[in-house]
Amino acid sequence: MTQTAIADLVSRLRAGETRALARALSLVENDAPEAPALLSACFPHTGQGLRIGVTGAPGAGKSTLVDRLARAFREAGKTVGVIAVDPTSPFTGGAILGDRIRFREHQTSGSGESVGDSGFYLRSMATRGSLGGLALATADVALVLEASGKDVLLIETVGVGQDEVEIARLADITLVVLVPGMGDEVQSLKAGVMEIADIFVINKSDREGADRVEQEIRGLQSLVTNHPERTPPVVRTTATTGEGVPALASAVGELEQWLRQENRLTGRRTQHWRRRLDAMLRTELMRRARQNGFEAKVLQFHAARIASGQQDPWQLIAQLTEKVFHPDNSS
Amino acid sequence: MTQTAIADLVSRLRAGETRALARALSLVENDAPEAPALLSACFPHTGQGLRIGVTGAPGAGKSTLVDRLARAFREAGKTVGVIAVDPTSPFTGGAILGDRIRFREHQTSGSGESVGDSGFYLRSMATRGSLGGLALATADVALVLEASGKDVLLIETVGVGQDEVEIARLADITLVVLVPGMGDEVQSLKAGVMEIADIFVINKSDREGADRVEQEIRGLQSLVTNHPERTPPVVRTTATTGEGVPALASAVGELEQWLRQENRLTGRRTQHWRRRLDAMLRTELMRRARQNGFEAKVLQFHAARIASGQQDPWQLIAQLTEKVFHPDNSS
Repeated sequence: MTQTAIADLVSRLRAGETRALARALSLVENDAPEAPALLSACFPHTGQGLRIGVTGAPGAGKSTLVDRLARAFREAGKTVGVIAVDPTSPFTGGAILGDRIRFREHQTSGSGESVGDSGFYLRSMATRGSLGGLALATADVALVLEASGKDVLLIETVGVGQDEVEIARLADITLVVLVPGMGDEVQSLKAGVMEIADIFVINKSDREGADRVEQEIRGLQSLVTNHPERTPPVVRTTATTGEGVPALASAVGELEQWLRQENRLTGRRTQHWRRRLDAMLRTELMRRARQNGFEAKVLQFHAARIASGQQDPWQLIAQLTEKVFHPDNSS
Repeated sequence: MTQTAIADLVSRLRAGETRALARALSLVENDAPEAPALLSACFPHTGQGLRIGVTGAPGAGKSTLVDRLARAFREAGKTVGVIAVDPTSPFTGGAILGDRIRFREHQTSGSGESVGDSGFYLRSMATRGSLGGLALATADVALVLEASGKDVLLIETVGVGQDEVEIARLADITLVVLVPGMGDEVQSLKAGVMEIADIFVINKSDREGADRVEQEIRGLQSLVTNHPERTPPVVRTTATTGEGVPALASAVGELEQWLRQENRLTGRRTQHWRRRLDAMLRTELMRRARQNGFEAKVLQFHAARIASGQQDPWQLIAQLTEKVFHPDNSS
């Protein structure tokens, strides 16, 4: 794509063309060659949207909760983008489950014609493959969605594992969703998600054990360091009926107001960009390295030799990177 | 440390000095400057040990199962190393839970004196921080443990998320642990762990619902692609009582025998090294980049400018990497 074609795609997606948006999202999600230029063209149109991360254990009802929250924001007149990050198979490249049917009723079609609510867009993410790739791809998708004019971005992830913590860190506001009686709650809090919570949600709170979960959260809040001056509120919801969702939306609104004061939002976004620059740099260095002696077949050849004990991997890496950084002193 | 000191440390850990082993493990886990040389010195003493990954949802009883398996291997005369990978807080750097007390009775002390079983060593891993760092650190720790003469390495991880799938891929054999009645089982199978299973374990199989879990596994096995010619067996255990553990140890033994035939083990390890070379390369490139224009404070400065919309991150990365690869054409 030429620079002109990219500029054209961006102005079409900004004008509300669903087809252009879908195309742009696919380009960045697949890390196409034109992705950097496209993201660069989207960048000036971002900065106003609010990113809300929704994370929690599998089975916590996050999808239903995100659905309800999306409706609440739409009813308040805001446009909404949803990014559902399903960790998918590294082997098949496809998610085992893809049960996003309930979203259909307010999703727009990919044909450029709006079949439902044009102020809403849902994107289900697959993994980009490499470690860290998923977080970066999600960040890129969020940026394009924001550039398309969405006021609120809801990013749903499974909150167990480093990648998911990383994705949650994209967000301006992170909701950590817990449920009563799901095995050993404390066990499922191991993964560092407690520390990134701005708001705790006890979903399925009509179930027995909601009090115990709340107690556990209160007990752990001494560990929370995201904003030491503000204790994260605990909101109870039953996403299937919608109960508690207005209270949750209010809690988000209050927090947003607080964050927009005293530059807290910019501070958080600086930390986000600091980490994202690192990931972008890593990706770009690897891309260039693959053109400078680290071609896939070279690595495959060496991997086989290492696996049979014929080559020392640390010596190999030292030699190869030396060549990348000092191509003229090649041996 | 000098090369001589490193060689000395390696010969001491190979002679069974627990203190030397603990020191070496800390050096590689913390990615100390001498880590590459140390790993390189350990490398010739590896290749014989068997790596067994044990992965599954939080609360599946993996730690107890690993404990039982370790005992079974010890009773069969094999030396055992255990690596427990607890995803820890990215903020505090410490695990919320550290309940490894039950391992104490056969753990050796860090003082160089064996207070228990000297053929056993347990290492609890913290995260190395960056994305992908945990998988790499675990691989490094496994290599040092193997060089110390452990016949079997048990690597325990929470099986949800990309990082954990990555860690499971270190293993020669991967056990995926499921339990009856833990919320929605199918939900918790999303993360791509089903495809990496060589053996399925239904732990806590005295609970109601074991049949249903087994049915679900059998239903999904058409997806399993690790060794298409071999359907992963399903073994039921109750780790707390030890029931089914001998059957599991036998299943592992049979699989090991099968893998050692026809070079299958080397094939799998080549794939492992192919991925690990990628991760090592990434790490080394970043290390060098940080010495060539990507110092932390430079990135911090740019992150703040990006967060307030004053700088385009994609243009920045292109400019900075250009400088790394062509330092002489600096602008």
